[in-house]
Amino acid sequence: MRIIRFLDDGNQERFGHDFRDGTAALLTGMPQAKLRNAGRRLRVAKLLAPVAPAAILCVGLNYAQHARELGIAAPRYPVLFMKNPAALNHPGDPILLPPSCQNPPQVDFEAELAVVIGRAAKNVSATQALDYVLGYTIGNDISARQWQQEAGAGQWVRGKSFDTFCPLGPELVTPDLVADPQDLRIVCTLNGKTMQDASTADMIFPVAELIEYLSDDMTLLPNTVILTGTPAGVGFTREPAVFLQPGDLVEVSIAGLGMLRSPVAAG
Amino acid sequence: MRIIRFLDDGNQERFGHDFRDGTAALLTGMPQAKLRNAGRRLRVAKLLAPVAPAAILCVGLNYAQHARELGIAAPRYPVLFMKNPAALNHPGDPILLPPSCQNPPQVDFEAELAVVIGRAAKNVSATQALDYVLGYTIGNDISARQWQQEAGAGQWVRGKSFDTFCPLGPELVTPDLVADPQDLRIVCTLNGKTMQDASTADMIFPVAELIEYLSDDMTLLPNTVILTGTPAGVGFTREPAVFLQPGDLVEVSIAGLGMLRSPVAAG
Repeated sequence: MRIIRFLDDGNQERFGHDFRDGTAALLTGMPQAKLRNAGRRLRVAKLLAPVAPAAILCVGLNYAQHARELGIAAPRYPVLFMKNPAALNHPGDPILLPPSCQNPPQVDFEAELAVVIGRAAKNVSATQALDYVLGYTIGNDISARQWQQEAGAGQWVRGKSFDTFCPLGPELVTPDLVADPQDLRIVCTLNGKTMQDASTADMIFPVAELIEYLSDDMTLLPNTVILTGTPAGVGFTREPAVFLQPGDLVEVSIAGLGMLRSPVAAG
Repeated sequence: MRIIRFLDDGNQERFGHDFRDGTAALLTGMPQAKLRNAGRRLRVAKLLAPVAPAAILCVGLNYAQHARELGIAAPRYPVLFMKNPAALNHPGDPILLPPSCQNPPQVDFEAELAVVIGRAAKNVSATQALDYVLGYTIGNDISARQWQQEAGAGQWVRGKSFDTFCPLGPELVTPDLVADPQDLRIVCTLNGKTMQDASTADMIFPVAELIEYLSDDMTLLPNTVILTGTPAGVGFTREPAVFLQPGDLVEVSIAGLGMLRSPVAAG
């Protein structure tokens, strides 16, 4: 099933199946339990990120080619950091460049496969891990590099957590429609130019191993979003470096999951 | 007002005023709006942490004497990291030492003043910041040092986020009862022996400045918990190092906020 979350004309939060004409088939219930087609069509007044995250867990340095472009050895364990949940950004909504991130420019894109946990996961083995996945969607782990690398004293949370720094969506795609999460093409374009183009096969720790590792004596609550790392091609590793500017358009697409579009504006 | 959150005999979540005899005066409503004394006494079947955190933001290296014991210069900006919200631990409940943290022992205590945000705070100045505080309570930023420092590739989230690693409570104390959050004695004992004994006056960035900094283009959602850093005296800086063992009892007290007790057990 492909599920969107949206506001209807009465400003009520709904789930639905997107007809891509500004309307959706209303789905009642909750994605974690069972959604039923209510046989009604509603106008999509405002598309929302498909989940309100209980937590946003992020994995760094998880693509071999990205680790190489950074000149860093592949990590022994997944590198875990988090984003403030208020950083959530809806599909189509602008990434806002905070004043503290504009001089010099430093805000970067990171296309990522996003995994949404459906039920509490603790001490789950890799072989069982995908049973805990509610669905997949697209994430963009927007990153202010100076805050991430220097001004944050080595901790990445600050530079990753400004409001609008977590575009997510457009749809939640349930696992029955994703034959193999490690065989998905992931592409990021900036103003139409390809910046990242890779396969999730390049992940150092595949999704099932990430869930096993992260759930080791740490509960992954329902609606936890796991951003699984970004492939090579981010802006700050380029010569010359590329950073987001007001007026830019970032588009992330993953095979079978659609496209997540985010314009960029001054904050 | 001093507010506890608890389960009553019907397993329903309640707020109340603690009579400290196993019963509480039922308070109806929400702490963010207005709580009313319902004129009823209920049995406290299970004391809960006073808030279910929307996010747990943590500030590192925020006491001058603690930075000195680590041999680290005072940071230029507050050092921000986060804990997974599932790490929340109720007053009196055991800190569980995960198997991955037992050989060698590495789990440490960190007594902290915890600030609970009452309404969404964004771009708030230090002079207005305390108006956004719902109340104060006690936190213990339990830390697995090897995961924090080495195995996490420099990111602290993993070593700080195992389940039970965020004891919080016992009460939420509203700001009218806290004359000055920068003039509170904070003490941590391990099996009755004093390990940390300091004043919040030693904070490098006081609470109001932390809220200004953290809310800079980053929304602090209602029920965000800010752990404001720990004073000198933590276990891993001692000679010889002290780490938590099954059977230990950690007690953190802050003047006017009560005492947060956590026994320690193997996970």
